[in-house]
Amino acid sequence: MPHPIEELFNPRSIAVVGASNNPQTAGYNFTNALLKYGYQGNIYPVNPKYSEILGLKAYATVKDIPGPVDYVISAVLAPLVPAMLKDCSHNGVKVIHLFTARFSETGRSDAAKLEQEVLKLARGYSIRLIGPNCMGLFFPRLGISFSDAMPHENSGPVGLISQSGQAVEEIVRSAALRGLFFSKAISYGNALDFNECDFLDYLAQDPETRLILMYIEGLRDGRRFFDSLRQAVAQKPVVILKGGRGQSGARAVASHTASLAGSADLLEVVLAQAGAVSADSMEEFIDLAVAFHYLPPIGGLQVGVMGGAGGASGLAADQCEAAGLDVIPIPPEIREELKSQGISIWDWIGNPVDHSIRGEDAKFDHSEMLALMAKNERFDLLIVMFGEPHHERYKGRTADDYLEEYRIENCKPKPVMATVPNRDLGIDHYADWNWKIIYEIRTKLLAKGIPFYPSIGRAARAAKKVANYYRRREN
Amino acid sequence: MPHPIEELFNPRSIAVVGASNNPQTAGYNFTNALLKYGYQGNIYPVNPKYSEILGLKAYATVKDIPGPVDYVISAVLAPLVPAMLKDCSHNGVKVIHLFTARFSETGRSDAAKLEQEVLKLARGYSIRLIGPNCMGLFFPRLGISFSDAMPHENSGPVGLISQSGQAVEEIVRSAALRGLFFSKAISYGNALDFNECDFLDYLAQDPETRLILMYIEGLRDGRRFFDSLRQAVAQKPVVILKGGRGQSGARAVASHTASLAGSADLLEVVLAQAGAVSADSMEEFIDLAVAFHYLPPIGGLQVGVMGGAGGASGLAADQCEAAGLDVIPIPPEIREELKSQGISIWDWIGNPVDHSIRGEDAKFDHSEMLALMAKNERFDLLIVMFGEPHHERYKGRTADDYLEEYRIENCKPKPVMATVPNRDLGIDHYADWNWKIIYEIRTKLLAKGIPFYPSIGRAARAAKKVANYYRRREN
Repeated sequence: MPHPIEELFNPRSIAVVGASNNPQTAGYNFTNALLKYGYQGNIYPVNPKYSEILGLKAYATVKDIPGPVDYVISAVLAPLVPAMLKDCSHNGVKVIHLFTARFSETGRSDAAKLEQEVLKLARGYSIRLIGPNCMGLFFPRLGISFSDAMPHENSGPVGLISQSGQAVEEIVRSAALRGLFFSKAISYGNALDFNECDFLDYLAQDPETRLILMYIEGLRDGRRFFDSLRQAVAQKPVVILKGGRGQSGARAVASHTASLAGSADLLEVVLAQAGAVSADSMEEFIDLAVAFHYLPPIGGLQVGVMGGAGGASGLAADQCEAAGLDVIPIPPEIREELKSQGISIWDWIGNPVDHSIRGEDAKFDHSEMLALMAKNERFDLLIVMFGEPHHERYKGRTADDYLEEYRIENCKPKPVMATVPNRDLGIDHYADWNWKIIYEIRTKLLAKGIPFYPSIGRAARAAKKVANYYRRREN
Repeated sequence: MPHPIEELFNPRSIAVVGASNNPQTAGYNFTNALLKYGYQGNIYPVNPKYSEILGLKAYATVKDIPGPVDYVISAVLAPLVPAMLKDCSHNGVKVIHLFTARFSETGRSDAAKLEQEVLKLARGYSIRLIGPNCMGLFFPRLGISFSDAMPHENSGPVGLISQSGQAVEEIVRSAALRGLFFSKAISYGNALDFNECDFLDYLAQDPETRLILMYIEGLRDGRRFFDSLRQAVAQKPVVILKGGRGQSGARAVASHTASLAGSADLLEVVLAQAGAVSADSMEEFIDLAVAFHYLPPIGGLQVGVMGGAGGASGLAADQCEAAGLDVIPIPPEIREELKSQGISIWDWIGNPVDHSIRGEDAKFDHSEMLALMAKNERFDLLIVMFGEPHHERYKGRTADDYLEEYRIENCKPKPVMATVPNRDLGIDHYADWNWKIIYEIRTKLLAKGIPFYPSIGRAARAAKKVANYYRRREN
């Protein structure tokens, strides 16, 4: 039996109440995004001021729409919501996404009262609510989007539940640049009716979703959340970013989604007990998702690092150790192998493998060294650092030349990550060339199924948390 | 009286021993870089195999050079160094930069012995040594560079002392993209003769240098270093990045520059006692330099944050608090001012100022709100977050439009930082447009004297350490 939300999220028709031809309005944006993303069901713009909106026939109220309406997006002002609810009740509407805001998040008692009235009315009409004060649903396979700035073509195995709509955009867009795509993403704002537990239960059983990301500001039902989370984690990894951890953050989430932040320390304990993975920042949130998606289970903390030159090798080791990884010495059996091959630096080369000390020894080949490390059972994980190709003498080199130096894909099935540094986009006159080759190296790595990170510290911290996750599962 | 190093670093002539016409060699690169960066003194390539190198007359040995040679770059193999030293002694050479490597850093006793022999010979000839195993000097004002990948035109107030040459390149190039330029940068490798203390003393009194950065792997003279550091800190800020903090990092720096890493914890205490600022990673190292260069002294930890939307506001508050800043509530006098202006969200708006809750209230202007915060004495520091302009409806907007929204430069003389997020350069087909506008916003901010950071966490962590530095100076 499908989860009850499944039907709600597969609407045959969508009405946008408060639709508009004015591109500066939310009503325009919702209508426009559905058209642009190729939603195949009927789209009904609703606004008594227009007869046509974006080429579609417009209706004065939801009542006036001839066919059944499964899903409604509300972009009207808060005081108009009760009347709209009544109109919807005449037309078999099952669920309303209330983009409409200025309810309890304002901290004002009349607004909070109106919010409760809306909930009561909806329950009376048997209409479920997403929101209020949220961006609603991004469901790329069905062409449902709330923004024109989301990746177009791709659907993927990541599900996202977020109180913030801005966070959905940031996460979906940032993740796409790292080669991660979404099954569905839900922004749910004040969680007046449907809350984090409903969406978590839904994605836990959703066959399209293999990894769940959650951005939460507060819990509406802490006890149920722990149960839902445990059940979800039994199915697939769940990574959680909590907004409003400190005092000022708690104030910010209260005025954003009327969330009571609760104790951040307590939440950390609950997440750990449930087996979820907690992210410390937006960057780490994406980094963890990338690791879960692209890497096989990491069986331990012993890491081999390849490719830094000079100072970068020592700093890489420090970053790995600070993250909690174990940068083991080169195993004796690898040294013996190098020696038997007549490689002069057999006794000198270390882990991290310093790219700059090969010198004139042409026998020492970085890809062969990496292959030796990949075959060696002492390494649980490998990280390969791609330096920036900035010297003029490298200008003829292609991304393929760089990749050929390590043949990183030969490390599989061992977990392997690449670091390809992000140059800051600043005041640099020769930067264009660098950006292009960085972009090409990254794109080609992803095509080979190798995730990239902008720094060794970010790669190492993600690896450590993911390894912990798998270790806990085994125990 | 000028510091003795001053004369050595202003050579009238430079010989490159081991120069070559083969672009794959270090000898070619050193000669080429001097030519390309417009070094005005005489350049003497030395190599018995050539009569001409890169259009310059080549000499068989240093002895054969007709005029005086102030400075020698050695790119010959280690066993050839003693003979070269003798040649140099015949020609009044004052200082030799030994790019030549494979000495004690190899961990081999014969190599370590040769290194000591080189030191003894140099002392006998009264020749000072930089290195061995290093890239030497980058002195943009004189056109001295060891690489063709350094910023060309600019000299600036930052001095850099680094055991690693790779780190010099990475730091100088990364810093240039953030609007920071260098007076001189010194890579000194194994520190056989001149060591970290010599260079620190020199830059401490150098009038061209207003900020000192140091990347160190080990100390050759810990006691003297503490004294030199204290004296330097009395003159100008000193920011230090230590490579080889953990066990594996210590192994890495031993095989890189034969450094004994020592206790990282102890070093932290020493740096703090001397009043230096310690960086945790390469990224933070640059972030701190940017803050010292662009910001006036930060007098306290109370921060005002402007510009995030929705979830980003709560996360920004969390990152600031985690860094140790105090995200204070909006002061009552600002609320009263907003109320008196008839602004509807006077009681709702918080710190961080959530960009998305203005709604239809046209009276609320973000630049005016920012100006109120800048005038208010409770804020020691402001951070303004520029969102990514990704929606299609913004496509006509210019960088100036974004800057006009905040008029961030009006915050001065209060310390103010901007965050302009780095999109990861990944597999994104509409990214070019975004890169360009991010680049333009950043460039225009720097032109107004406002530093930018890629994330709020990085800005906040840099601000906290810089504020601590100024607080310690006052006590």
